[in-house]
Amino acid sequence: MECPTITAEKLSVDLTTRTETDSMGAIAVECDRYWGAQTQRSLTYFAIGQDKMPTELIRAFGILKKAAAIVNQDLGKLPAEKATLMIQAADEVIAGKLNDHFPLSVWQTGSGTQTNMNANEVISNRAIEIAGGELGSKTPIHPNDHVNMSQSSNDTFPTAMHIAAAEAIHQRLLPMIKKLRDALQSKSNEFEDIIKIGRTHLMDAVPLTLGQEFSGYVAQLEQAISRIEATLPGLYELAIGGTAVGTGINTHPEFAVRSASKIAELTGLPFVSAPNKFAALAAHDAIVFTSGAIKTLACALMKIANDLRWMGSGPRCGLGELVLPANEPGSSIMPGKVNPTQCEAMTMVCVQVMGNDSAIAIAASQGNFELNVFKPVLIHNLIHSIRILSDACSSFTDHMVVGIVPNRDRINHFLENSLMLVTALNPKIGYDNAAKVAYKAYKENSTLRQACIELGLLTGEEFDQFVRPEQMINPS
Amino acid sequence: MECPTITAEKLSVDLTTRTETDSMGAIAVECDRYWGAQTQRSLTYFAIGQDKMPTELIRAFGILKKAAAIVNQDLGKLPAEKATLMIQAADEVIAGKLNDHFPLSVWQTGSGTQTNMNANEVISNRAIEIAGGELGSKTPIHPNDHVNMSQSSNDTFPTAMHIAAAEAIHQRLLPMIKKLRDALQSKSNEFEDIIKIGRTHLMDAVPLTLGQEFSGYVAQLEQAISRIEATLPGLYELAIGGTAVGTGINTHPEFAVRSASKIAELTGLPFVSAPNKFAALAAHDAIVFTSGAIKTLACALMKIANDLRWMGSGPRCGLGELVLPANEPGSSIMPGKVNPTQCEAMTMVCVQVMGNDSAIAIAASQGNFELNVFKPVLIHNLIHSIRILSDACSSFTDHMVVGIVPNRDRINHFLENSLMLVTALNPKIGYDNAAKVAYKAYKENSTLRQACIELGLLTGEEFDQFVRPEQMINPS
Amino acid sequence: MECPTITAEKLSVDLTTRTETDSMGAIAVECDRYWGAQTQRSLTYFAIGQDKMPTELIRAFGILKKAAAIVNQDLGKLPAEKATLMIQAADEVIAGKLNDHFPLSVWQTGSGTQTNMNANEVISNRAIEIAGGELGSKTPIHPNDHVNMSQSSNDTFPTAMHIAAAEAIHQRLLPMIKKLRDALQSKSNEFEDIIKIGRTHLMDAVPLTLGQEFSGYVAQLEQAISRIEATLPGLYELAIGGTAVGTGINTHPEFAVRSASKIAELTGLPFVSAPNKFAALAAHDAIVFTSGAIKTLACALMKIANDLRWMGSGPRCGLGELVLPANEPGSSIMPGKVNPTQCEAMTMVCVQVMGNDSAIAIAASQGNFELNVFKPVLIHNLIHSIRILSDACSSFTDHMVVGIVPNRDRINHFLENSLMLVTALNPKIGYDNAAKVAYKAYKENSTLRQACIELGLLTGEEFDQFVRPEQMINPS
Amino acid sequence: MECPTITAEKLSVDLTTRTETDSMGAIAVECDRYWGAQTQRSLTYFAIGQDKMPTELIRAFGILKKAAAIVNQDLGKLPAEKATLMIQAADEVIAGKLNDHFPLSVWQTGSGTQTNMNANEVISNRAIEIAGGELGSKTPIHPNDHVNMSQSSNDTFPTAMHIAAAEAIHQRLLPMIKKLRDALQSKSNEFEDIIKIGRTHLMDAVPLTLGQEFSGYVAQLEQAISRIEATLPGLYELAIGGTAVGTGINTHPEFAVRSASKIAELTGLPFVSAPNKFAALAAHDAIVFTSGAIKTLACALMKIANDLRWMGSGPRCGLGELVLPANEPGSSIMPGKVNPTQCEAMTMVCVQVMGNDSAIAIAASQGNFELNVFKPVLIHNLIHSIRILSDACSSFTDHMVVGIVPNRDRINHFLENSLMLVTALNPKIGYDNAAKVAYKAYKENSTLRQACIELGLLTGEEFDQFVRPEQMINPS
Repeated sequence: MECPTITAEKLSVDLTTRTETDSMGAIAVECDRYWGAQTQRSLTYFAIGQDKMPTELIRAFGILKKAAAIVNQDLGKLPAEKATLMIQAADEVIAGKLNDHFPLSVWQTGSGTQTNMNANEVISNRAIEIAGGELGSKTPIHPNDHVNMSQSSNDTFPTAMHIAAAEAIHQRLLPMIKKLRDALQSKSNEFEDIIKIGRTHLMDAVPLTLGQEFSGYVAQLEQAISRIEATLPGLYELAIGGTAVGTGINTHPEFAVRSASKIAELTGLPFVSAPNKFAALAAHDAIVFTSGAIKTLACALMKIANDLRWMGSGPRCGLGELVLPANEPGSSIMPGKVNPTQCEAMTMVCVQVMGNDSAIAIAASQGNFELNVFKPVLIHNLIHSIRILSDACSSFTDHMVVGIVPNRDRINHFLENSLMLVTALNPKIGYDNAAKVAYKAYKENSTLRQACIELGLLTGEEFDQFVRPEQMINPS
Repeated sequence: MECPTITAEKLSVDLTTRTETDSMGAIAVECDRYWGAQTQRSLTYFAIGQDKMPTELIRAFGILKKAAAIVNQDLGKLPAEKATLMIQAADEVIAGKLNDHFPLSVWQTGSGTQTNMNANEVISNRAIEIAGGELGSKTPIHPNDHVNMSQSSNDTFPTAMHIAAAEAIHQRLLPMIKKLRDALQSKSNEFEDIIKIGRTHLMDAVPLTLGQEFSGYVAQLEQAISRIEATLPGLYELAIGGTAVGTGINTHPEFAVRSASKIAELTGLPFVSAPNKFAALAAHDAIVFTSGAIKTLACALMKIANDLRWMGSGPRCGLGELVLPANEPGSSIMPGKVNPTQCEAMTMVCVQVMGNDSAIAIAASQGNFELNVFKPVLIHNLIHSIRILSDACSSFTDHMVVGIVPNRDRINHFLENSLMLVTALNPKIGYDNAAKVAYKAYKENSTLRQACIELGLLTGEEFDQFVRPEQMINPS
Repeated sequence: MECPTITAEKLSVDLTTRTETDSMGAIAVECDRYWGAQTQRSLTYFAIGQDKMPTELIRAFGILKKAAAIVNQDLGKLPAEKATLMIQAADEVIAGKLNDHFPLSVWQTGSGTQTNMNANEVISNRAIEIAGGELGSKTPIHPNDHVNMSQSSNDTFPTAMHIAAAEAIHQRLLPMIKKLRDALQSKSNEFEDIIKIGRTHLMDAVPLTLGQEFSGYVAQLEQAISRIEATLPGLYELAIGGTAVGTGINTHPEFAVRSASKIAELTGLPFVSAPNKFAALAAHDAIVFTSGAIKTLACALMKIANDLRWMGSGPRCGLGELVLPANEPGSSIMPGKVNPTQCEAMTMVCVQVMGNDSAIAIAASQGNFELNVFKPVLIHNLIHSIRILSDACSSFTDHMVVGIVPNRDRINHFLENSLMLVTALNPKIGYDNAAKVAYKAYKENSTLRQACIELGLLTGEEFDQFVRPEQMINPS
Repeated sequence: MECPTITAEKLSVDLTTRTETDSMGAIAVECDRYWGAQTQRSLTYFAIGQDKMPTELIRAFGILKKAAAIVNQDLGKLPAEKATLMIQAADEVIAGKLNDHFPLSVWQTGSGTQTNMNANEVISNRAIEIAGGELGSKTPIHPNDHVNMSQSSNDTFPTAMHIAAAEAIHQRLLPMIKKLRDALQSKSNEFEDIIKIGRTHLMDAVPLTLGQEFSGYVAQLEQAISRIEATLPGLYELAIGGTAVGTGINTHPEFAVRSASKIAELTGLPFVSAPNKFAALAAHDAIVFTSGAIKTLACALMKIANDLRWMGSGPRCGLGELVLPANEPGSSIMPGKVNPTQCEAMTMVCVQVMGNDSAIAIAASQGNFELNVFKPVLIHNLIHSIRILSDACSSFTDHMVVGIVPNRDRINHFLENSLMLVTALNPKIGYDNAAKVAYKAYKENSTLRQACIELGLLTGEEFDQFVRPEQMINPS
């Protein structure tokens, strides 16, 4: 794209802009931008914050516009030459080449109309440019009549929301959870023979292996993957074809199904046409449910990250069962300090995801009649959650989990001193007697064995036979 | 249960209490209560608020204790006569007959230990009573050694949480959603021929039928049912058999699987043994996910209830498209006022469910090592959400949805006056011309037809042919 | 109150009920209940959940109705004999004697109209009874014309919300926070000479005294008190006098100010008439702000409770710096186990308060035009938060804080071994050299002193002179 | 800053980088960046999401570092020439000139240590450059020993949080709320004579003026300003001087108070030294409270924005009492459609602020011992809320409120038809009779006057005398 050649009659206007028009009239747009009048208006009217529409959504619009062009051509509504131009432009959107031409804020129209128009305008102007036409002329490609053909913001934006979310989950979130799960599984295997003291209520409890402890984390992530996958069918249902209010006005009867099918083909994901378009425009329950599953993952990761930083606490005044990787100096005042920073980044991310989930639920509850007009805030928060959790899982794996080393001395020290090994005696001497043993040892700062003998409950040999940590880590 | 016969030596003590003991010593309990020392201590130490453990959870403990007794007997760990006594007592717990003997607060130990002990003590004492023994004697049924055999609070409480939640969803929530869905479906059918104006952004849009509008609600509830059902597999996984830290210490190797199987048999729900017991004790991700699905339902219901009250607004100064049932006088000062009170109760319930979901997520994120000690607050909120949503769905159906009557005059009036019928002209005269028509009619307070003719875009005959609401409610 | 004498013509109806009427017609009410037709209808139409309107709110309605009767009499609108009857009945409501006659659910009309009418009906019937009249006759005291004189639900319910919240904060919450603050202050004083290792990021840091650590808790509670007090002016503004929509229709011009003044007199709290009644009916920002301050307290208490349970963790495999009171057996399977149960109850309460705050904010954001119809859910959650936090503070003080004992051996052990004492050397040898010392000691499992000498940075004497924990607990 | 001249011995390394070092060793940094080793490490280890530390916080660090340099010089700890260099560099940070040198993610160390070091490193290197030294040489200005003198991340980061939040509130939020309040006040005055129907429960109620309705909005914003101001004293308390754990180790006894005083001088805001530094590092209750007040504003704005879009709904099938500015085409498919987009942007912003508040509360509750390590997520969310609310208030004022025009025809039409004018008859004919009148008129679709006459309750003259909307908008 180049700025237009300056001609005499244009010399009186700003040389760096061109004129774009919409139903409200004309407006100047910088000449090196593909967007048109409605995008430009939005920049003026919605100068709110710094949050831009996520690039994942822009890509999704590219996919959607490409699919619509193909289907409209297939249905005989669009000449091949127009479709070809639009597809070429849409491909550039998909590839992210035109991201700089999508400048709009999240805080705009609640239907995302302006971002849909941004896509329509950019594809229109880029296609015009490819065709050798004049930017802003809407010829040969009109943003509404051609790029938006058979569509409304009301069905395209939610369609793009679902495409963006599903792709982000598939391409980023699920792989990163699996990466972390695999790293934890590997550690669980590595630690399978390390018997350590268990802790419940933060208090000493009966033993388990460090491998078992990590297996719990693996199980949580396995389930998180299943849960997120269980929410995908909802995201696969696309609103496209519902147009303005869900009736599909101004669409060919086959447009909805064909478009969804084409989007499935372009993305490799099993998108289908939403069975009820009224719900698909007016509600975003699928987004809430997906966010709920992602929040559940955040709760799991918060627990895991907290466990690791507590087990790594010390080095001398904490639990110190694990040595965590030292990636950077921990303190600007305390020399030599190393902190569990990856855990902290992770827990902060988890907290943010919980906050995002709250925003999503409120937004989704606020639809009226044929439309929910909180669409941008919904997708903004969902994509935000996906991005930061994906990256955090990856960072946590690479800079934390793979480098975890157990401190066997410390682990053994705790194991040998715990009073809760007394639990193994329940079936032998009963709960009440076992409680007396534990209490006596605690009070006298002695060992369970000694207390047991002194109370005349067991001989030393019996005690040694019954109280074996290695026999306490499984049913018997 | 009767108070003991007064004997001489007892005359010096409080005649209305008996002495119960635990590892901390003796404590007086009212003689007509089955609970023991630990329950009594909890009453003293946790006099916080008025929230009691939900009866659904008490029933679940009955089921669990019965199953454990049967399995322990089957495994040869418990004599038949003891098992029989305990099963009989547990059956009374299941039937709700002993609910008055479960007085404990939600705000107690975070593992729910005291409620597990409450169950152990009540079943113990009631079984003792059946056997003709002395309450508090722990003979022939000891609360720990027999009722709690092969168990820990740490695996029983989460097991009871899952049983309670799954039963409440099956017995109350899902049936009530279905009842509401069916009522809305019936209305959708009834209204299928009523064409009305659509509204997006609260602004006049293209038409749809009232039946289509209601079909969106039906679709939302259908999906809500599917989503909630998709969370049930997580609830079906039971922690029982994990005992103190997940290793299953002090259990028979078959106890876990057999217990889950027995609970499945007793409840008719497909419970299974959780594949990883460490996660099952230390995390409650399944609860978070279920709450997320229930919150999604709340978001849907908020939208539905809001739509109905807005469509019923008026009677003369609102939208007035629907006449809602008048169940009660609406105002203490404005005579004759009738309000959409069922909608208001519903939306308040929805808001509460969103708040509960926030509490659940935070609580679930706070586990440490082998235990999450926010179990009571988790189940309290989940059961609360299920209860109020179930009841609200039922009330909303009976006192609201079934009585909805459309105001056809009003609906037609709006339909005929809307400017957005102009959308049907997009394929004929293009978006930009159609916009001019709408704008002219709006400005001049005239009709689209008139504006179209005056602008020379269409003849009156053409307009009448193209702009037909009945052709705008489907793809064409 | 007695059941009416049975007469012949009544024999055909249910003897245990009487007939009550409202503008919708007649309805049967149990004869031993004071409530009337609208309350009875509400029981039928709002059988949702188990949450009843808080008794604090019922009492507030008593105060409000009494004040209104006095003011209406003073303004010449109500004869003295009627006012006297109503005041007597209202006094019984204030004293809690009639709580059983307020059976309504939180999940009712969003304006709380039915609870206002419940108050009107109960006071009417009780006053009628005192006057020797017939229950349900509305003579000589009519629930609307007399008890509700100059009022609407729309101004009475928010007035009662403010009275209830302000009283609960004054009578319960603030005293309990102060009790806890005082107990912590006492411990802070007691511990002022105990030097211990500090921990940041859970990792060993520079020392402080245990008293300083507790002083942080005291400071948090001090600030919490100030914050909650800063929200009270908003609660002191009363809606009374706004009637139906805020205009004060059907009130005497002096009614608003006089009523607020009378309520101030009756409660001893500085209530005033809200300067803008439209906002007072349609918004509940004051409730949101108060809840925010209470949530801030919850965040503080969560930190404090967590600190204490972590410092009390062990007894042998945790930090073990504090010995917490052992109030009850901790485990149904692990004999002798004692858990930080008060901390757990507290943290669960804090989580609930955070969830309640979410519900409050959403509800408060949902007003429309002249009324917010989420009033019951707002006051339900606020009073719930106040109740459980108040009780939790009290329980936490009595059963936890006052019994805390430091484990000086453990504290000293950690202090002497920490590597972070090296920080004292920053001004002597620079941050980079100090880091080398810490790292060497850590790697070689030696002491800072030894590492310092071996690195040739300081002599042993210099080290001993510079690294003194007692000089590290203040600026120098 | 220029890239270094290339010399022979450097040719083997990457010409575009220089070597920076910290206690972990050497690392390459791009030669045109001022940051040092720790910032560079953070870029590697925390490649999470796209959220950067807010520029408001960077500026705050500049202020803080400048103040510290001045105070350290005043206290004789820092030579004047070093201080001068640092002050000059800090001034550039304050002015925003070096923002591109603060690349770090929000999702980093929970103490914000890396951003503190980023500030130390940038000021160090920029000061070195001014002095003509070699970047990375730490001479003559060392990032730790000089820029961070008397400081720790643990006290600087929370200090910067408070400075950033207080400045953003003063400079952006409060002015924008006041701007909106003034615009609404102006409209309230303009509309003071327009009598319209009130609506409660969305249903027709008694009248008020449009000016009164807007006065409610003004009152809400007035109170919001007061509430936010009431939270400022908490933000004015600065942690600086607490250093690593709150004890003030390695600081001059006067450093804390002098630094706060200097910051007050530099900002013109009344900052003071926090009375308890332990709380100031380990808790962020002041942030939670401020966020709560800001969330309260969001709840108010949600109500206001919703009211306006509902009153502007239509143009023909909604309430249509207001005509809102038409800033842009509203639909990509429905020509001529104009939507209340500013309201939608505002309500989305409000929802986001509620979500942010949830994240803030959770984060603030998670402190341990001497430090809360959720600092970055706290300030990220608070600044985010302030930014988007400030901008939204401004946009809403300019593009929405100032352009509101009442539709007097519509307003009068509703007023004249409402049945709730009957309320004026309560004092004349009693509530029950008035209800009959309203019901009869509603059923028969007639007027109140007609119904009143037909019921024989009033003559037409009496009716006209009593039922006057202009007498219903105030107490009488």
